[in-house]
Amino acid sequence: MVKIAPSILSADFSKLGDEVREVEKAGADYIHIDVMDGVFVPNITMGPLVVEAVRPVTSLTLDVHLMIEQPERYVEAFAKAGADIISVHAEATKHLHRTVQMIKSSGVKAGIVLNPHTPVEAIRHVLSEADLVLVMTVNPGFGGQSFIKETVTKIKELNEIRAHEHYNYEIEVDGGVTDETISLCTSAGADVAVAGSFVFGKADREAAIKALTAAVK
Amino acid sequence: MVKIAPSILSADFSKLGDEVREVEKAGADYIHIDVMDGVFVPNITMGPLVVEAVRPVTSLTLDVHLMIEQPERYVEAFAKAGADIISVHAEATKHLHRTVQMIKSSGVKAGIVLNPHTPVEAIRHVLSEADLVLVMTVNPGFGGQSFIKETVTKIKELNEIRAHEHYNYEIEVDGGVTDETISLCTSAGADVAVAGSFVFGKADREAAIKALTAAVK
Amino acid sequence: MVKIAPSILSADFSKLGDEVREVEKAGADYIHIDVMDGVFVPNITMGPLVVEAVRPVTSLTLDVHLMIEQPERYVEAFAKAGADIISVHAEATKHLHRTVQMIKSSGVKAGIVLNPHTPVEAIRHVLSEADLVLVMTVNPGFGGQSFIKETVTKIKELNEIRAHEHYNYEIEVDGGVTDETISLCTSAGADVAVAGSFVFGKADREAAIKALTAAVK
Amino acid sequence: MVKIAPSILSADFSKLGDEVREVEKAGADYIHIDVMDGVFVPNITMGPLVVEAVRPVTSLTLDVHLMIEQPERYVEAFAKAGADIISVHAEATKHLHRTVQMIKSSGVKAGIVLNPHTPVEAIRHVLSEADLVLVMTVNPGFGGQSFIKETVTKIKELNEIRAHEHYNYEIEVDGGVTDETISLCTSAGADVAVAGSFVFGKADREAAIKALTAAVK
Amino acid sequence: MVKIAPSILSADFSKLGDEVREVEKAGADYIHIDVMDGVFVPNITMGPLVVEAVRPVTSLTLDVHLMIEQPERYVEAFAKAGADIISVHAEATKHLHRTVQMIKSSGVKAGIVLNPHTPVEAIRHVLSEADLVLVMTVNPGFGGQSFIKETVTKIKELNEIRAHEHYNYEIEVDGGVTDETISLCTSAGADVAVAGSFVFGKADREAAIKALTAAVK
Amino acid sequence: MVKIAPSILSADFSKLGDEVREVEKAGADYIHIDVMDGVFVPNITMGPLVVEAVRPVTSLTLDVHLMIEQPERYVEAFAKAGADIISVHAEATKHLHRTVQMIKSSGVKAGIVLNPHTPVEAIRHVLSEADLVLVMTVNPGFGGQSFIKETVTKIKELNEIRAHEHYNYEIEVDGGVTDETISLCTSAGADVAVAGSFVFGKADREAAIKALTAAVK
Repeated sequence: MVKIAPSILSADFSKLGDEVREVEKAGADYIHIDVMDGVFVPNITMGPLVVEAVRPVTSLTLDVHLMIEQPERYVEAFAKAGADIISVHAEATKHLHRTVQMIKSSGVKAGIVLNPHTPVEAIRHVLSEADLVLVMTVNPGFGGQSFIKETVTKIKELNEIRAHEHYNYEIEVDGGVTDETISLCTSAGADVAVAGSFVFGKADREAAIKALTAAVK
Repeated sequence: MVKIAPSILSADFSKLGDEVREVEKAGADYIHIDVMDGVFVPNITMGPLVVEAVRPVTSLTLDVHLMIEQPERYVEAFAKAGADIISVHAEATKHLHRTVQMIKSSGVKAGIVLNPHTPVEAIRHVLSEADLVLVMTVNPGFGGQSFIKETVTKIKELNEIRAHEHYNYEIEVDGGVTDETISLCTSAGADVAVAGSFVFGKADREAAIKALTAAVK
Repeated sequence: MVKIAPSILSADFSKLGDEVREVEKAGADYIHIDVMDGVFVPNITMGPLVVEAVRPVTSLTLDVHLMIEQPERYVEAFAKAGADIISVHAEATKHLHRTVQMIKSSGVKAGIVLNPHTPVEAIRHVLSEADLVLVMTVNPGFGGQSFIKETVTKIKELNEIRAHEHYNYEIEVDGGVTDETISLCTSAGADVAVAGSFVFGKADREAAIKALTAAVK
Repeated sequence: MVKIAPSILSADFSKLGDEVREVEKAGADYIHIDVMDGVFVPNITMGPLVVEAVRPVTSLTLDVHLMIEQPERYVEAFAKAGADIISVHAEATKHLHRTVQMIKSSGVKAGIVLNPHTPVEAIRHVLSEADLVLVMTVNPGFGGQSFIKETVTKIKELNEIRAHEHYNYEIEVDGGVTDETISLCTSAGADVAVAGSFVFGKADREAAIKALTAAVK
Repeated sequence: MVKIAPSILSADFSKLGDEVREVEKAGADYIHIDVMDGVFVPNITMGPLVVEAVRPVTSLTLDVHLMIEQPERYVEAFAKAGADIISVHAEATKHLHRTVQMIKSSGVKAGIVLNPHTPVEAIRHVLSEADLVLVMTVNPGFGGQSFIKETVTKIKELNEIRAHEHYNYEIEVDGGVTDETISLCTSAGADVAVAGSFVFGKADREAAIKALTAAVK
Repeated sequence: MVKIAPSILSADFSKLGDEVREVEKAGADYIHIDVMDGVFVPNITMGPLVVEAVRPVTSLTLDVHLMIEQPERYVEAFAKAGADIISVHAEATKHLHRTVQMIKSSGVKAGIVLNPHTPVEAIRHVLSEADLVLVMTVNPGFGGQSFIKETVTKIKELNEIRAHEHYNYEIEVDGGVTDETISLCTSAGADVAVAGSFVFGKADREAAIKALTAAVK
């Protein structure tokens, strides 16, 4: 079974509450929230106020993906706003272990994100602390990109380390996830798949989510 | 007559379309959109995708206030998203004249924003190009602050220069605007007042807007 | 009467307590603490732990001069460490008014510092909030420089504005202060003079301080 | 009489020696060298090695215009390479007075550059030390822009201050200088005009330079 | 056979066209162009305008080595200027995969550069996309350094991975390359050697290039 | 035998000379000096002037740990001030090999520091040049943290590489070192242990140091 995490980046922001309720009914597991600061990635999207707005609307896990520089600066704000998971990029902070500690001590699950080029080796010594590892399967900050197959190698590695070390993190993938690519990820060990336009871009979101989960079986 | 620009920073983001439609009916003139990048100010709020979502919902002027570093990087994105006015901070760019040129050449009105401490002298040589000057009457990035009276001096100066040089910019004020402070601004020469919680924080937005416009007369 | 503020930058750091006690007995008014971060100026000196160490040793005013980027990040730490005055450079923050507010709301007096080239105009709208204005009479970050006479113009301007607007800030000067230059400053309106090697560099600190105060009369 | 400073940015870099010799014969006064670092302005051009290459080729004044961040880092390198004048942007350093001191103490004339929006007030307290003030009459970093008339106000101000204070700086203009705009500058007080494509873009450089000097008389 | 890539950093910039023509005749394979921004490395050298000037002069491969921060900002400019290969430092961007994609989608070959301390592991997941890997055999930004033997380990690793994974990148070395060190590199698997003063510093460039290629056989 | 390096960060800065003399008598081996710039870590502590003050007081090894950005900027100043070892963070510079070279060529021993998350792989190619590797066993910049056990893995790896490659570096640990944790480090291969409050926080420093060394046997 794969968990599906629709990204509200592809939702209609004029009626975000309705959009979130709809994907919740349609079978989504997480609500994925893409925070971009225009520095780590060349786009600005949304901040804590969106987490705060979505929080009372749904009981799903709010899965916040920080594509921002020095994410340690905003951990507290997103935790207060209602995040359930806060994920930070390995490339965005020089104090990754401390940032993971901060997230967990604020009562939130801690995720670590890897850009397509970043090796698992870079985060090896914080995997014991991680609740989630998010493998970017496209480059962050842009829409409409195609799935990078080379990244599947890292999903496998993370899956093997998890088994070998008895770690507990979930493996999430983000980017270019469709009914064609999702099984590449899940068979390598991925547990959660972020879906953007594949879900919110379609009129029938339930069908879209079913297409993804069906593709895995 | 003063124009009222409710800031959607104080709106309910789960039903932004409804919020905007409601203040439009309630008599608002501009929709003020506060963009923060977590670097120029210590908060991250919203980006072009929010402008894009609000654009089809209203025919009001979309008045985008960029509280971001090097705003020249995002002028094009906000112009494409549907902004009518893009305002940039004098403190945020070393190329203020070029940034104003960029905004105007993308077919959008150009505003220049002054932090509470920044003197009018700092922007004197771009006033001839400005369509709007936004005088911050509180420090940007935080809610719940009280109006800084010293800033009224700058409204007066801008009003005098405008008259003397036959310039055409509107003077806008942002921060701590209530039915008690608004007339300080308008009698000094302000044309547009941003209102955050004073409008969106109240059940009856029409009454709130009327309270502001009434306070001016 | 001029107040003398010996800068511990020139003291013997292996016996800082003794050094401070000695200048207190010798007639010093303030203890000047030069904090440099190696970014705003090309030298790293000392942080809050030095303020904390000096605090119990003396009852003199601890006059902390932050030569650091974005001083708003460290206001709280220096306030907690026991500073009586915290001064920040106009060139070091884009939010000068907010930084001054922060200092005052932490129960400490707020100073604003001007580099030799920075005009008074740059801080005109925060002078009403300032408890002290520090005019750099040499370029900060280096020792052994000679007094820049052009800066006296700014002392005079600050003195005139103070009189005219009924403001309450003290005017402090820092750099190249000797028994030859001090009266240039005080006759222009300076109230406090920072002295580095002129006091700590001499065996008889009492004589040194007296030489300065005598030069003023 | 106006001095003409052809900018080698518009020269043919495959035969820079010949280009420089040609404009020297054609009557040029200075060789203007535009250094861009891709950070202060969005273009990278040339560094000390170009000054070094041009130095033995000509006896003209090498007039180096640093469009780089924190120019204090490269003053020594350009001085050693053979610069006669080094000009730095007021917007590029927080230690303008120190940078001017550094330039002069390395035996080179010191210039200060003003972006189109930057007021003369920003550099008022270093004018006594300046050998040259360069007024940007277009925004730096880009070619093909048209002359910004508002900047003439600043030429006049600089001219008046120079007369009043008995200062000695030359006033130089850079950007959009043609036989149509040059007299606007010189009648306001400019002494030196940078010319890019107007000289190097023409087959007959002598005619081009004569057209400029003729336009002034 | 080794390819020789003379670096024009060591050429006479007053007659760059002649210099390039001469090394082309002398048997050079690539023209190596060292772009430094004064931020990634402490030197500023040259930008796209030099590529543009050299392009019409030679039919050799223009091999552009970007020693600049966030090279993604200048990929387009160097591609337009006529580069055949654009190489970026692994240490200079947080989005290495995206930068490589950008270079290739602009029709240019993509190279990745490793500083002496950077392990091959850091770029393992982009090797499948690389056309060239440049192993720095001295620290970039300075001349006159001696070859660092430890870096040969990385040439071997890259050679082995290439064979094992059937990748196609060339391996280039840069720094301290002489007729004594070149065979260390080529026998480890290097295909291209950058030569600076060893070629341009000699009167007879043909002899210099022959000395290098002879040393390999 | 383990060497003990008391960190003066925990000493009384009003009588630093006495504190240092006392731990020297008490059996300390190194004096550890924690330099923080408020940028690499969120605290500002001390600079070269403290090294200079401590130098004449003790004959112990002055072991300077730079928790600063781009430490290459300050190597010379700390060397001149009297440091015996200068250690720089792998995360703080893009030119780690060059920085190590700089330290050694200034006649000082070179150390490399690893944050808790940073793998040994990141510094593998500079280990041949290192005189010391400092493994952070807590996150730098804060006091009162507990020892991170996962970091012991890295001590072991460094110990194995040292044996295998016949390298000569000492392995030092810093953070949460007590009589309970020290033997975890030394049995994994650590040679030097930094102790902060465990030594300076106690009245009897000799007993504290003996407790540490005894715990190892």
